Amino acid sequence: MIKAAVLGATGYAGIELVRLLTTHPEVQIQVLGSKSFAGQKISDVYQNLRHILELECTELDLDAVAKCDVAFTALPHGASKSVIPSLLDRGLKVIDLSGDYRYDDPAVYEAWYGEPHSSPELLAESVYGLCELHREQIKTARLIGNPGCYTTCSILGAAPLLAHKLADTKNIIVDAKSGVTGAGRGLGLAYHFCECTENTKAYKIATHRHTSEIEQELSHIAGEPLMLSFTPHLIPQKRGILATIYMNLTKPCTTEEVAALYKDYYKDEFFIRVKDAGELPETKHVAGSNFVDIGVCVDRRLNRAVIVSAIDNIVKGAAGQAIQNMNLLFGLDEKTGLAAAGFYL
Amino acid sequence: MIKAAVLGATGYAGIELVRLLTTHPEVQIQVLGSKSFAGQKISDVYQNLRHILELECTELDLDAVAKCDVAFTALPHGASKSVIPSLLDRGLKVIDLSGDYRYDDPAVYEAWYGEPHSSPELLAESVYGLCELHREQIKTARLIGNPGCYTTCSILGAAPLLAHKLADTKNIIVDAKSGVTGAGRGLGLAYHFCECTENTKAYKIATHRHTSEIEQELSHIAGEPLMLSFTPHLIPQKRGILATIYMNLTKPCTTEEVAALYKDYYKDEFFIRVKDAGELPETKHVAGSNFVDIGVCVDRRLNRAVIVSAIDNIVKGAAGQAIQNMNLLFGLDEKTGLAAAGFYL
Amino acid sequence: MIKAAVLGATGYAGIELVRLLTTHPEVQIQVLGSKSFAGQKISDVYQNLRHILELECTELDLDAVAKCDVAFTALPHGASKSVIPSLLDRGLKVIDLSGDYRYDDPAVYEAWYGEPHSSPELLAESVYGLCELHREQIKTARLIGNPGCYTTCSILGAAPLLAHKLADTKNIIVDAKSGVTGAGRGLGLAYHFCECTENTKAYKIATHRHTSEIEQELSHIAGEPLMLSFTPHLIPQKRGILATIYMNLTKPCTTEEVAALYKDYYKDEFFIRVKDAGELPETKHVAGSNFVDIGVCVDRRLNRAVIVSAIDNIVKGAAGQAIQNMNLLFGLDEKTGLAAAGFYL
Amino acid sequence: MIKAAVLGATGYAGIELVRLLTTHPEVQIQVLGSKSFAGQKISDVYQNLRHILELECTELDLDAVAKCDVAFTALPHGASKSVIPSLLDRGLKVIDLSGDYRYDDPAVYEAWYGEPHSSPELLAESVYGLCELHREQIKTARLIGNPGCYTTCSILGAAPLLAHKLADTKNIIVDAKSGVTGAGRGLGLAYHFCECTENTKAYKIATHRHTSEIEQELSHIAGEPLMLSFTPHLIPQKRGILATIYMNLTKPCTTEEVAALYKDYYKDEFFIRVKDAGELPETKHVAGSNFVDIGVCVDRRLNRAVIVSAIDNIVKGAAGQAIQNMNLLFGLDEKTGLAAAGFYL
Repeated sequence: MIKAAVLGATGYAGIELVRLLTTHPEVQIQVLGSKSFAGQKISDVYQNLRHILELECTELDLDAVAKCDVAFTALPHGASKSVIPSLLDRGLKVIDLSGDYRYDDPAVYEAWYGEPHSSPELLAESVYGLCELHREQIKTARLIGNPGCYTTCSILGAAPLLAHKLADTKNIIVDAKSGVTGAGRGLGLAYHFCECTENTKAYKIATHRHTSEIEQELSHIAGEPLMLSFTPHLIPQKRGILATIYMNLTKPCTTEEVAALYKDYYKDEFFIRVKDAGELPETKHVAGSNFVDIGVCVDRRLNRAVIVSAIDNIVKGAAGQAIQNMNLLFGLDEKTGLAAAGFYL
Repeated sequence: MIKAAVLGATGYAGIELVRLLTTHPEVQIQVLGSKSFAGQKISDVYQNLRHILELECTELDLDAVAKCDVAFTALPHGASKSVIPSLLDRGLKVIDLSGDYRYDDPAVYEAWYGEPHSSPELLAESVYGLCELHREQIKTARLIGNPGCYTTCSILGAAPLLAHKLADTKNIIVDAKSGVTGAGRGLGLAYHFCECTENTKAYKIATHRHTSEIEQELSHIAGEPLMLSFTPHLIPQKRGILATIYMNLTKPCTTEEVAALYKDYYKDEFFIRVKDAGELPETKHVAGSNFVDIGVCVDRRLNRAVIVSAIDNIVKGAAGQAIQNMNLLFGLDEKTGLAAAGFYL
Repeated sequence: MIKAAVLGATGYAGIELVRLLTTHPEVQIQVLGSKSFAGQKISDVYQNLRHILELECTELDLDAVAKCDVAFTALPHGASKSVIPSLLDRGLKVIDLSGDYRYDDPAVYEAWYGEPHSSPELLAESVYGLCELHREQIKTARLIGNPGCYTTCSILGAAPLLAHKLADTKNIIVDAKSGVTGAGRGLGLAYHFCECTENTKAYKIATHRHTSEIEQELSHIAGEPLMLSFTPHLIPQKRGILATIYMNLTKPCTTEEVAALYKDYYKDEFFIRVKDAGELPETKHVAGSNFVDIGVCVDRRLNRAVIVSAIDNIVKGAAGQAIQNMNLLFGLDEKTGLAAAGFYL
Repeated sequence: MIKAAVLGATGYAGIELVRLLTTHPEVQIQVLGSKSFAGQKISDVYQNLRHILELECTELDLDAVAKCDVAFTALPHGASKSVIPSLLDRGLKVIDLSGDYRYDDPAVYEAWYGEPHSSPELLAESVYGLCELHREQIKTARLIGNPGCYTTCSILGAAPLLAHKLADTKNIIVDAKSGVTGAGRGLGLAYHFCECTENTKAYKIATHRHTSEIEQELSHIAGEPLMLSFTPHLIPQKRGILATIYMNLTKPCTTEEVAALYKDYYKDEFFIRVKDAGELPETKHVAGSNFVDIGVCVDRRLNRAVIVSAIDNIVKGAAGQAIQNMNLLFGLDEKTGLAAAGFYL
């Protein structure tokens, strides 16, 4: 059994990790770190866990964590950086859900996060944990920068066309819609039920940090530096991201050809489900699961592809992907503990 | 492996059965019966199942079903009755999710369903599948009448006080609130999103069929025939029933005493979680799980107990309970395939 | 034109007052008091008001308020009491939306609010502003205690049967379901979108302060002191309260007879719409309007009446009723500015 | 008083017309046409209208309609065409909410609707009822083609940049999100509450008919024929469209400059509210109102403008705009009956 610590266990990404890990056959949760709820049982904070997991949440205790094999750090931005070096020193594998270890280039981090990176040498060592793209590197890593939710959905949706040089890199637009769990459990007027329900809005246009992550990975795939528009929207549901991606084609293609190309590109990926031509993804098809659903459509009038990809932001966009990374790190079948269907209802 | 048929697989109870059975370690789904979607893959009808279960739905084919060990019948009221005798003849165990096999007395069925029962001898043989109350009988049954959703929630909430003769049987009121999955997948203006969302209403006051089921079981427990008020309400959410039960106490008690009594009554039940005094259940604590959460409160001014119980109507109120029954029928640990925490989010 | 001040204008009751007053033909809003948003335009805080009302919010300035004819105080509990005497001294009519001036007896206030009343002489003078019950007294009052939302819905639903001595006063149960605006705009984990949506729960069983208000008014109507069970529930919608009221009948009646009795009791009331036998209210029929919809049903088996009443908690349960009171205070037609249909959608 | 007929009164656009007209000071509703509910009172079909409007719905009766001054036709696509010529012959003004009379060129209609237009001479006469763009023509028209919901939102959002030749006409993308009322009241599995809630999806990519309407109007404004990507999405709320519009700038601009340009372009328009730089629209700011809220943002890295516009799809996108057109046709102040703030809650 893999002994696991979840630090930041009572946020939404953390608790989804806990929920998924309680059904993982190879993992035993040993430590639940929570600043806000230290001293309380996790099953008192999240009563859905009663009779399932009655472990007490604790303040960060490095000695206790050090007895684990892996630590998931789902801490607020910045907090991860101060803890992770100690965990690595003590021999743990670390899967970090913050934005701190996702970049190749500290300058990009600095440009989008507004401060120099505090441990550039670890940044250099860390592997970007988008399993479908970096599987081999992940297997041998010590430190994983688990990707952002918007980024997972956007990168996997755009990758095949770019890899085949079929998309003009100058006019890529990603219009993404996210459920409210993406904003976390912190209080804020914008997340009050009465302010959120029956409401849709865009936010952080042209400035959302995930833009830089998407650009980094898609530039690799395209083989050239690219920039794109990324617009996040908040929609009145809990789970789910739908990214609608617009790319001008470099040569005429049909929807069927693009669908075939996507199916081939992802043919070995259990968690990626490419739709047939004429089908489109919906967030309810992926909610609660680690799947990425992708549908494609070519607008022949404009010679433009419209790709739609859907994930559950707190599963494939956070907790599920973290477990997928853990499975790779520990030599397990990548699907272990993650092969359940989405809720649909 | 238990070979299972799900008849009526594409309704909401049916598809939740399918979802749960795909993670059950001892079951293989062999037949998916669906009149409306015969010839289509279940994963085309419910695309959350892609890469998980790609079985084709079929019209009822008794020979194919006969190769199974158990059939779950989630058919419209009345349709069950015409199929079940044949299935029993061929040696299957049958777990019926309709109202057809839930009654001790055919006259009660006739009074509430408005027609004579078509197979009173099977009704006499069938066992009421509320596992916590009829566990031993269930183990050796051929035919289980799986309880209704409102009834499961109401009966388990009221049982301990009645069993202890602490409740006046004359003034019991059950005010229940249900999510919309309880109404099924059939079309109807009342279930159009724009008519349902931001709306709450009562319906079928004093006439809902589940009243008779609740009265039957609580009369057994109380040791005397009783009648009660049952009022169902439709609330704007998918999953969940919350039943608020009012009972006049036959002698003064405190909330703490009643909570202790409930905890004792259900002390061996994994799926029943009695709250401490001061805590109350919420439907999000049980959504997606087979748990029943019960909170109690005594109004000392009035010497009246207010009991609140919560379930997921399509899990403990339908599909999950059906699997719990199957586990009992086949000698498995009752929790097998059902021990996951609720979604919370 | 009536010059009006709204104190506490940026809470949900306050802003609904503002929304309704902007279409009232006889009112001009002069002062918008808001501690949290002083110095900001109301149309910046609530951008739906752009091009409609661009007034700046201010800290409490008694001299400015004193130029008005009427003040609506939608302040947090307790804050009202410190301001209202000054307003009355300066000659304003005051309609208070807090619980401070709703009681006949300071001892009841003290018992339920946990502290002595600070101005019992004003409490003695104030009129309980449930227009349908106290219309004549309201017309000549200086200070109105605007009723609570649950109380309006419950009292009007139960009154006719009690007035006719047809209900046993010993076993009255009010099971009420409220949308989330009832909790106000203050932040709290329980009101985070992800915690509220897809969730229903009971709260404050046997202890909610509105119980005392309902008991006070229904005791008057019944002509004898009565106590009852009141259970509030939170449901995942913004607007609306549905109260389901159970009363044992003192003599056998039919649903038709009770419906006729209710229609007669409220025959002159524009804002009360009694349903025909067989019809039931829904919150979407009243959302956005000042109407109270009431449906009745008699359970002949139990000789028990089940009454269902529905209001919009922030209109008839707060802002709309406050305006109805203002109309009475200033000799206007009671419907002025309030005769619009609900939103339905 | 203007005597008005609403044909198709019981669909969502129709009933919103009815709701708004009941508060219009210059209109009396004389005829409510409804095939599905003929013989029933509108207040029985939509019980929010009780005590407000108790008129009976009727089958189409041209003689009764002929006594009116104006007819609003909110009929299914195609049905309008068979009725409207008769109404015009009898001297009524007609405001048609279908797609039948929105095109300059019958060939465009035929291309997108898949059949020849049945009355091209009326199509030639009809005026496209987007008031802010065609106000003078509307005033003297007999027949108004009331614009689609997506189109109103998209055209008004894109117009100013195109009018100033600041946008490249080759790479315009409109990514629009609509609430479910946009799909109407007809039954369909996709609109079942349990299928819609907690779900977002795109549909009809590159093929939605509103594309042609948007292209027609924006081509006029740009002074050159243009084509664009239009992608509709369904989001889990009742009211509201948010359109996110991407346009490459033909010369560098700042957000502030674009905001100033928009404010100037719409400086005389009551119903268009341009946000300051840094502010973005939300559907809850416009829900229930006839306003169009527009926010702008320039992505300097990409020299691309991102424009976000929001409307209530059944008000400014249907019923409200129809009334705005009526006000123009009858020489009333354009705001009459439409100057209320949105609901916000």
